[in-house]
Amino acid sequence: MGFKTDIEIAREASKKPIQQIGAGLGIPEDSLIPFGHDKAKVAAEFIAGVQDRPNGKLILVTAINPTPAGEGKTTTTVGLGDGLNAIGKNAAICIREASLGPCFGMKGGAAGGGYAQVVPMEDMNLHFTGDFHAITSAHNLLSAMIDNHIYWGNKLEIDERRVVWRRVMDMNDRALRDIVTSLGGVSNGFPRQTGFDITVASEVMAILCLSNDLDDLQRRLGDIIVAYTRDRAPIYCRDIKADGAMTVLLQQAMQPNLVQTLENNPAFVHGGPFANIAHGCNSVVATTTALKLADYVVTEAGFGADLGAEKFMNIKCRKAGLAPDCVVLVATVRAMKMNGGVAKVDLGAENVDAVKAGCANLGRHIGNLKSFGVPVVVAINHFTGDTEAEVQAVLDYVRTQGSEAHVCRHWAEGSAGITGLATRVAQIADSGVSQFSPLYPDDMRLFQKIETIAKRIYRADEVLADKKIRDQLRAWEEAGFGNLPVCMAKTQYSFSTDPNLRGAPTGHSLPVREVRLSAGAGFIVVICGEIMTMPGLPSVPSAEAIMLNDAGQIDGLF
Amino acid sequence: MGFKTDIEIAREASKKPIQQIGAGLGIPEDSLIPFGHDKAKVAAEFIAGVQDRPNGKLILVTAINPTPAGEGKTTTTVGLGDGLNAIGKNAAICIREASLGPCFGMKGGAAGGGYAQVVPMEDMNLHFTGDFHAITSAHNLLSAMIDNHIYWGNKLEIDERRVVWRRVMDMNDRALRDIVTSLGGVSNGFPRQTGFDITVASEVMAILCLSNDLDDLQRRLGDIIVAYTRDRAPIYCRDIKADGAMTVLLQQAMQPNLVQTLENNPAFVHGGPFANIAHGCNSVVATTTALKLADYVVTEAGFGADLGAEKFMNIKCRKAGLAPDCVVLVATVRAMKMNGGVAKVDLGAENVDAVKAGCANLGRHIGNLKSFGVPVVVAINHFTGDTEAEVQAVLDYVRTQGSEAHVCRHWAEGSAGITGLATRVAQIADSGVSQFSPLYPDDMRLFQKIETIAKRIYRADEVLADKKIRDQLRAWEEAGFGNLPVCMAKTQYSFSTDPNLRGAPTGHSLPVREVRLSAGAGFIVVICGEIMTMPGLPSVPSAEAIMLNDAGQIDGLF
Repeated sequence: MGFKTDIEIAREASKKPIQQIGAGLGIPEDSLIPFGHDKAKVAAEFIAGVQDRPNGKLILVTAINPTPAGEGKTTTTVGLGDGLNAIGKNAAICIREASLGPCFGMKGGAAGGGYAQVVPMEDMNLHFTGDFHAITSAHNLLSAMIDNHIYWGNKLEIDERRVVWRRVMDMNDRALRDIVTSLGGVSNGFPRQTGFDITVASEVMAILCLSNDLDDLQRRLGDIIVAYTRDRAPIYCRDIKADGAMTVLLQQAMQPNLVQTLENNPAFVHGGPFANIAHGCNSVVATTTALKLADYVVTEAGFGADLGAEKFMNIKCRKAGLAPDCVVLVATVRAMKMNGGVAKVDLGAENVDAVKAGCANLGRHIGNLKSFGVPVVVAINHFTGDTEAEVQAVLDYVRTQGSEAHVCRHWAEGSAGITGLATRVAQIADSGVSQFSPLYPDDMRLFQKIETIAKRIYRADEVLADKKIRDQLRAWEEAGFGNLPVCMAKTQYSFSTDPNLRGAPTGHSLPVREVRLSAGAGFIVVICGEIMTMPGLPSVPSAEAIMLNDAGQIDGLF
Repeated sequence: MGFKTDIEIAREASKKPIQQIGAGLGIPEDSLIPFGHDKAKVAAEFIAGVQDRPNGKLILVTAINPTPAGEGKTTTTVGLGDGLNAIGKNAAICIREASLGPCFGMKGGAAGGGYAQVVPMEDMNLHFTGDFHAITSAHNLLSAMIDNHIYWGNKLEIDERRVVWRRVMDMNDRALRDIVTSLGGVSNGFPRQTGFDITVASEVMAILCLSNDLDDLQRRLGDIIVAYTRDRAPIYCRDIKADGAMTVLLQQAMQPNLVQTLENNPAFVHGGPFANIAHGCNSVVATTTALKLADYVVTEAGFGADLGAEKFMNIKCRKAGLAPDCVVLVATVRAMKMNGGVAKVDLGAENVDAVKAGCANLGRHIGNLKSFGVPVVVAINHFTGDTEAEVQAVLDYVRTQGSEAHVCRHWAEGSAGITGLATRVAQIADSGVSQFSPLYPDDMRLFQKIETIAKRIYRADEVLADKKIRDQLRAWEEAGFGNLPVCMAKTQYSFSTDPNLRGAPTGHSLPVREVRLSAGAGFIVVICGEIMTMPGLPSVPSAEAIMLNDAGQIDGLF
């Protein structure tokens, strides 16, 4: 193989001291809280002091429905940021933090790939600056205080069968999904059935990522519904008096992390909520801070555009008052082929017809994104095996959709391979053509919000939900939660709820299995299909091969 | 009140940049891994490079049996370190890290008190540099991999009833003491009863604190016994193939943390194993590193001298090849009074007779410590209400025991209040009079090791242990574990196992309830009485009052 692996490239990185990266954004050294020499948090006091500055341009990177072929969304986010800097713009990127637990199951989620990576990779996949550990602690403190309240007399009259607040751990541990606690007699409390979720599924994670500042954080933490009484009255985190201590535990974690790309450009890496039961974007604080410090901010949303971009627009932008100036939709020739019916093993052979067939998936995403009023550019993330005819087929197709596509070679070439896209994105963002608005107003009925997304984004014919679910939605409307956006949890692999239905399916229904109220985060989770909130490890976990080599480097993590 | 609180004093601290504190020890800036501006880890590469330097003098601070009156062991450790620096010596202190969980129950364990404190206090009681979070992750990764091994076919033939490796959380959560996991059907595994301990009780914590370097760490982690087969053959962590990934998770945590005292002297704060089921001292790496960088290193051991100093000598010093040059035994007039039978509410009134009566406890500790061949100096940690006659009674008594006592006012005056003790301690340490040797040889039988401690330290008449326990000890000897030291777990409040038996009791027995093998840490835990490894929260947890104040400071933590 003539190619270097991601980890080989990352280890050759010539990193600058993080103070120098901060200085490039105008952050004084004493406003950076260092974690080692290559990571820092931006001090809250500094952030408070730049709030009256104008915002830079916001560029969202999203993608077609993911396939096993890979689409390279983070790689393109990193590459586009480097590309903008390479053409003389002052740009920063904002991405999510990685979860620790899954790294010990499958190989770790590197931050980008090839010559478009964020470093230090190892730290970002391990403890990083401790944010997720802080979230775990804050979440579990509340859990302990709930059981402790019941233990000492249960003045709030919590119905032990209706404690909805579980515990979390940043680990893939299926044995903790469903447990009975408080066994062993009087001194250990009242036995009850509960379980653990993985930390990224915690509502505390979603809250941290949607809060504007520490006051907002504490208010939202207080709003968490942790249990109900026998007559179904909600018990809030505030009633348990845990919100203050949780805020203290999260004070440091609320400050966004600054690292750098391989090309020494600034990267904010902060927060990482699940893209199914939560909204799947990096923190509002990171994005809004970056917008005050850089002229262009490139960020991404989890999963494909039908889930990730939809939530970015309808939840994050709505809540934080943000508006994207341009959207970049990442596609690959290989993914088009898979959407066109080609199996993964056959991706090596040229198949222009399959590419053309698969473009339907791309076209639908373009149309969907345009319905938010934002300009859309397609980035064709070039793979070495892509043929000219295949690439041309995508370019031609995108033109028929009233959009434009650019071939990007940032994976192999770094910023030099993506200056074309960067130039166009900057022009579009500067042009002010974006007329962003969310898909539905706050005051739409909850069920109608679900229908709007199902019909206009997923192109489903109908939403199936039994009476219990419709009654629950009505009850929340009556309780004052009707103005919340909905947070869709469905498979990322298809517009429908069937992960095998690629392309641009029509005629399907959206069955709603369950709805949950995240009153602190401020959304209604709509669960369509099986959603796993505590993963397991595979039969041969990657942890078995993770170890320090003789040079003290970490092998096996990637 | 004319006195400032600890937190008021700490907030007024004039901290120096941690790089400056490191420079005072000869640590170059790039060998310090900063965590903010006032905390840093000392890089492993730097530590490896100073191993051929001569060691400084090692001073152990220990105490009489603790009473509710408080004895001020950490305060004296900090004060003595500052005192040595004040008289022109190059001194550093080494203390333990605080556990996060208990801070939300009772008020946080400050690092010292008055004008003898280590800062930043808040960080040290919260996430600090993330070491305990790393230990939690490493421990629970092993737990997940054990259940995952069973789930995927159990090739090692682990007896599910004999999995001895539990999970940990750094939280006071009684509901997790005794749980059933893997409920919910086939995809969640095989239900079994287990539980959580608090992180400081993890064998991983003890291992981290006893390991010399990363190779030693990985070897010891591999040695952990996690389960047994049906025919009682041990299953090791190494068999589960978790030792490499656990070492990776602990790589950063293995590097000692450097902070500073209120007087800007260096303080290593690293590791914090339980003083009952583990050995209760800061890490070997911190102590041995400090000894290479400072001429005098003041460190402490958990609980009273009968438990803490005994384990420091018989476990830590034995394993790490350390030898204390002087031992400082901390006593207070108030604690003497309580040992002499005075109730806490009556401590305000002068009572010289009670002081004299209580001195028996002090005297026995002096004798015990001398049996290790080390010189002993008593530090009378002065409280404002102590009368001259009471203090004189202690001074006189100590003289009758062939030792010397010094009145120390570091709590009120900082280093200026403890220069007398500091001067004498330096003289004694320099004199080379210490002839340290552990209390028993490696090759003594395990039960005889327990007897030796019981009779020579606790002054018990006999050790009571049923046949099952004696058989277990013999079985471990046959399996090759006979050369390990024993780690006693008993109440800290008395020489006996009855916490109410103050003073210097005789005629008691030591009943051994249970023995456990910590094959990775390298000791046999001998449990005498009830030992709680997962605390609960009180009816009004301190967490309810912990919050950020308007100045962004943390209230309620102390």
